[in-house]
Amino acid sequence: MGFPGPNGGFDLERAQPPCEEVFVGLESAEQENVFCALPFTRDTRKDESARFSSAHSEIQEIGDRVRLETFAAGQIRREFGIATDTWHAGDLRFSLISPALSAPDPDTADEASLKAALVPAIYAEIEVDNRAGRRARRVAFGYIGNDPYRGMRHIAGEGFVGVGQGREVALMTDAPGAWSGIGFHPALILGEAHPENRVWALGQCGLLVAEAPAGQITRIRYAIAFHRAGIVTTGLDTQYLYNRWFNSVESAGAFALSRFDAAQAEAAAHEARLAQSRLSQAQRLMLAHATRAYVGCTQLLEHEGRPLWVVNEGEYRMMNTFDLTVDHLFHELALHPWAVRNVLDLYLARYSYVDQVALPGQAPVPGGLSFTHDMGVANAFSPIGHSSYERGGLAGCFSYMTQEQLCNWLLCAGVYIEAQGDEAWLAAQAGTLAACLDSLLQRDHPDAAQRDGVMHADSSRCLGGAEITTYDSLDTSLGQSRANTYLAGKCWAAYLILERLFARLGDAARAEQSATQARRCADTLVAAVAPDGSLPALLEPDSAGFHSRIIPAIEGLAYPWFAGRRDACQADGPYGDYVRALARHLDAVLKPGICLFPDGSWKLSSSSDNSWLSKIYLCQFVAREILALPASATAQADEAHAAWLSDPRNAFWSWSDQIEAGVAIGSKYYPRGVTATLWLGERTS
Amino acid sequence: MGFPGPNGGFDLERAQPPCEEVFVGLESAEQENVFCALPFTRDTRKDESARFSSAHSEIQEIGDRVRLETFAAGQIRREFGIATDTWHAGDLRFSLISPALSAPDPDTADEASLKAALVPAIYAEIEVDNRAGRRARRVAFGYIGNDPYRGMRHIAGEGFVGVGQGREVALMTDAPGAWSGIGFHPALILGEAHPENRVWALGQCGLLVAEAPAGQITRIRYAIAFHRAGIVTTGLDTQYLYNRWFNSVESAGAFALSRFDAAQAEAAAHEARLAQSRLSQAQRLMLAHATRAYVGCTQLLEHEGRPLWVVNEGEYRMMNTFDLTVDHLFHELALHPWAVRNVLDLYLARYSYVDQVALPGQAPVPGGLSFTHDMGVANAFSPIGHSSYERGGLAGCFSYMTQEQLCNWLLCAGVYIEAQGDEAWLAAQAGTLAACLDSLLQRDHPDAAQRDGVMHADSSRCLGGAEITTYDSLDTSLGQSRANTYLAGKCWAAYLILERLFARLGDAARAEQSATQARRCADTLVAAVAPDGSLPALLEPDSAGFHSRIIPAIEGLAYPWFAGRRDACQADGPYGDYVRALARHLDAVLKPGICLFPDGSWKLSSSSDNSWLSKIYLCQFVAREILALPASATAQADEAHAAWLSDPRNAFWSWSDQIEAGVAIGSKYYPRGVTATLWLGERTS
Repeated sequence: MGFPGPNGGFDLERAQPPCEEVFVGLESAEQENVFCALPFTRDTRKDESARFSSAHSEIQEIGDRVRLETFAAGQIRREFGIATDTWHAGDLRFSLISPALSAPDPDTADEASLKAALVPAIYAEIEVDNRAGRRARRVAFGYIGNDPYRGMRHIAGEGFVGVGQGREVALMTDAPGAWSGIGFHPALILGEAHPENRVWALGQCGLLVAEAPAGQITRIRYAIAFHRAGIVTTGLDTQYLYNRWFNSVESAGAFALSRFDAAQAEAAAHEARLAQSRLSQAQRLMLAHATRAYVGCTQLLEHEGRPLWVVNEGEYRMMNTFDLTVDHLFHELALHPWAVRNVLDLYLARYSYVDQVALPGQAPVPGGLSFTHDMGVANAFSPIGHSSYERGGLAGCFSYMTQEQLCNWLLCAGVYIEAQGDEAWLAAQAGTLAACLDSLLQRDHPDAAQRDGVMHADSSRCLGGAEITTYDSLDTSLGQSRANTYLAGKCWAAYLILERLFARLGDAARAEQSATQARRCADTLVAAVAPDGSLPALLEPDSAGFHSRIIPAIEGLAYPWFAGRRDACQADGPYGDYVRALARHLDAVLKPGICLFPDGSWKLSSSSDNSWLSKIYLCQFVAREILALPASATAQADEAHAAWLSDPRNAFWSWSDQIEAGVAIGSKYYPRGVTATLWLGERTS
Repeated sequence: MGFPGPNGGFDLERAQPPCEEVFVGLESAEQENVFCALPFTRDTRKDESARFSSAHSEIQEIGDRVRLETFAAGQIRREFGIATDTWHAGDLRFSLISPALSAPDPDTADEASLKAALVPAIYAEIEVDNRAGRRARRVAFGYIGNDPYRGMRHIAGEGFVGVGQGREVALMTDAPGAWSGIGFHPALILGEAHPENRVWALGQCGLLVAEAPAGQITRIRYAIAFHRAGIVTTGLDTQYLYNRWFNSVESAGAFALSRFDAAQAEAAAHEARLAQSRLSQAQRLMLAHATRAYVGCTQLLEHEGRPLWVVNEGEYRMMNTFDLTVDHLFHELALHPWAVRNVLDLYLARYSYVDQVALPGQAPVPGGLSFTHDMGVANAFSPIGHSSYERGGLAGCFSYMTQEQLCNWLLCAGVYIEAQGDEAWLAAQAGTLAACLDSLLQRDHPDAAQRDGVMHADSSRCLGGAEITTYDSLDTSLGQSRANTYLAGKCWAAYLILERLFARLGDAARAEQSATQARRCADTLVAAVAPDGSLPALLEPDSAGFHSRIIPAIEGLAYPWFAGRRDACQADGPYGDYVRALARHLDAVLKPGICLFPDGSWKLSSSSDNSWLSKIYLCQFVAREILALPASATAQADEAHAAWLSDPRNAFWSWSDQIEAGVAIGSKYYPRGVTATLWLGERTS
């Protein structure tokens, strides 16, 4: 709701902000029937009554008897936190409270904590300072829903009233004396002379109206609840796990109201933690925004009694997109590590495949195990072994990401095992890890003698095309998998992780094989350093990407850092030559005209204007925490990055990832920015 | 889908046509990869791929490799029937088949007939004449869905493939070799070079692609299935009754495919019956259109194991609006009479109330039993004793319809009992009928001595306002209840029905009381005849409506006609003076400048340009069948009325009711036109 105008609203399973009008209005202290509202509505005097009778418009008839005004931007002060979003205007304070930033492990947590975290509701509070007032003032909160299937309806129950759309969305309050109104326009509900008419139910506007008595401060509490019953997906039948406790939107809302104070305290604790960090204001804004966007994309489903975690890919709604999972990894391990294991298990069980591989221009040979790009799209699980996204015959967007996702499974597994010490799970993965190593080797080169630690063979699923990386909309500097410095960094990390895991499993031979590959990879990269100290984006000298320079060459350092291989990340450690080469590379490319935009913001590739915030956040962490770039060196960039999100061209979309010359051009309404959670762990933060 | 452009599509619980692009295309006989499609798509070369990668557009890349053309209007011949809608164009025939015009009584019918009638699916068939062709030609049927929550998905099962949105809508075929494709644009699916890529699932376009071999005629069968599981309403928890047999959209579609031939035969039988009637082409078009619109508004729900019938009020989606029920009555009694009883029972059990009444300017006195305007809106049942529509304090649109709905319950009950001979149900209503009579009497005049058979007292629920009739958007000539000639006609009919029912119940006293009131009413109306033989719209000489003239003065004759009181409808019968007065009235007002528009179409009120087709149809029946107006006298009007529906300004909305000067201004996408079913029973048809 932060973007002015009728742009926000209550979103359950949409791919964009709902563009509903939200009404938060307080009656004037001076004039009865004059309300001032926050600027989330459309300023019109139109209403739907003309659809029923062309002869008259109710809103015209009511005329000036009820006047709605809007607080000007200058009258409003907003506090945007990680769990609380507050607008102060005149005697009104309106807060949206979203304390559930994480979920406990549904397999082990007690029911009370699970219900508290998983209740499908957020909270709102309105405070009216009517201490100076001489009469009661009405305060209204509601919205004009735009669901094409479901109408607005009244809700009433023991201790609460509400309005909502269908069985899916409800706005409820336990304020004494509050009542629900439905109509064609907020002014018509507020101007209704007869309380008997409050049962009326035509129109898409629903309001909850309460009173703030004179001479005091009044606080009114609301729950905004969401609910879907029954099976909600296809391909794999799942339901929302919260149905274990909540069989309706009313039950969810009532429960939320019952724990309002606890929720508010949790939110305050989240804010306090953020306030205690050393992050700058710009960083806090980005972290708060990214965290909210991530949470808004999550679903905890249940399949045959087992939890199934899904992060939807923002506007694209692909499910558990693996190259996002690996970026969410650090955030999820901090907040709900069980979700990482949950996703890895489902990838292995259902979204893995074995392919052939081919060097450019050569015949296919056996490949190995890898994983799909995603598990489906928009609640439709894709068939076993297939993503919704990947197609053969391409060399750009929508091609296969076989190598990237193979690395991603290993990186997630390694970091998860290290963080959680989950030995049982590690033991169960022994065969998979061996298959992954074999697969990595084949994709390096089918001829063992020619392996250099870097990927050179494309999957046969490409049908003659070429694999791409997660950077699917960039040029080959970041988009091509083969011989890519970014992906090579991830391969190096995967080998280091495999070395450690095989060692822990007692498989010395494979540990050694993995170490050899890590060494080869590092050596290959070090050998490719250009005279200016930078690395080419692509190691193929006859490719355009050979002349590009990319920041994400350093990305791979993050994984060994969190997977028990900090030894390998030291400038004076066993891979010191590679680490020092990366530091020099970063130093060489972080310059205007190469990998800095004129305003100091980061440009992931020298040959593309399309820069991705999530990856910038991650690379900033690597740069500062691992490669010792001073925090001051990124302060200007942080300001510029935060300004991207607040830009009126972008702000409608909440948090967005792909920014081209300051404008969000893709990956909008997106969960991936939680790479910023890494910042909280920086020694300088 | 009859309105050209991206206006049709697959509607489940929407208030308007979905505006989805529907693709029905056949590959050219001459050129591979050139398709010609029916004109139901948007002619663009845009696709969604730019949302993923701003660098390229897939549809631009495919260029001329796949070309989509559209049949010009002149190349298409359409046959629009009551159950089959067919387009012929080139070698293509496309038919939509909707045979389920009625449903057997769910309490008594056998399971096989119930499943056949209630399966939530319609049928489609494509025929390709490739006898002259020298190679196989591809044929594609699908659509670009616009559901904001659900994505397009592949469907596959034993003997069928399909595409659909979520768990709610599916397009399925059992054609051998057919495959499903999903993508950003039909051209991209048809241009896909690799069969391996057919698993792809991004994009909102879903197609089913089949082949028509050379040298033969090929017919391809489709089911278009709809499904919602679980509780779908609020206020009263109900589910779709078809869930007894179909637990998914796939099961519904598969069952439909299994009975395709039977469905086609049923549709053919419907067409044959219509063809055998004596209706003109214009009348057939209107009857077919109206019947389809009605069926599209119906829901058979189930509450606690009992069937619950709902007709939704078109674009307004109010449920079982009682002043529409009374107009649907004749159609429903012909096709599913049990539904009438079902609705009457629920009105009595849940949507009735007892009020007070007041003469203008006087204090309220006890009123009596009546019924609400509707049962709720858009799947939200309203609270006991309340409609979604009615408000107090008004004298126009949205005011109470207490008198009108009291009459409507009685008229429906009387006609239902006569048609079905349901003595048990009649016996159970004895108390209710007595309460209704008492209520009618009080609303005539609380002082028995002053009663004249016409309604004079408004409900206390009006809170000082005035009751309205179903004609809520017209001026007082038809909109005001008090002393209204239209409503008086319905009161007269209600008294006649009560007389007969009380007689059958052996309640001679009430039968006599009812007869007295019917006589008073007729006498009052006859006494009001103006010198030119016409009746004033309102009997209050100081009202504007006193000078208006209305066709629906004759409407009330329809009810005794079907309720066993044809005696009362005869020009030489006991109410001959009233009947002759109505005939003279009709003769006097059916003139240009009074109740005819310049083109001969009917103008329900001389003082309003807003004329309602459903009521015109009903009054035409009364005029021709009861008042002996020659059929030739309405032929020109029929042509004009049919032209209203076909007018490009109106045709998008399928069948609409409120037409002002040729333009549909309200009550669009509406069920009420099935009053035209009465025409089939005319002696001259």
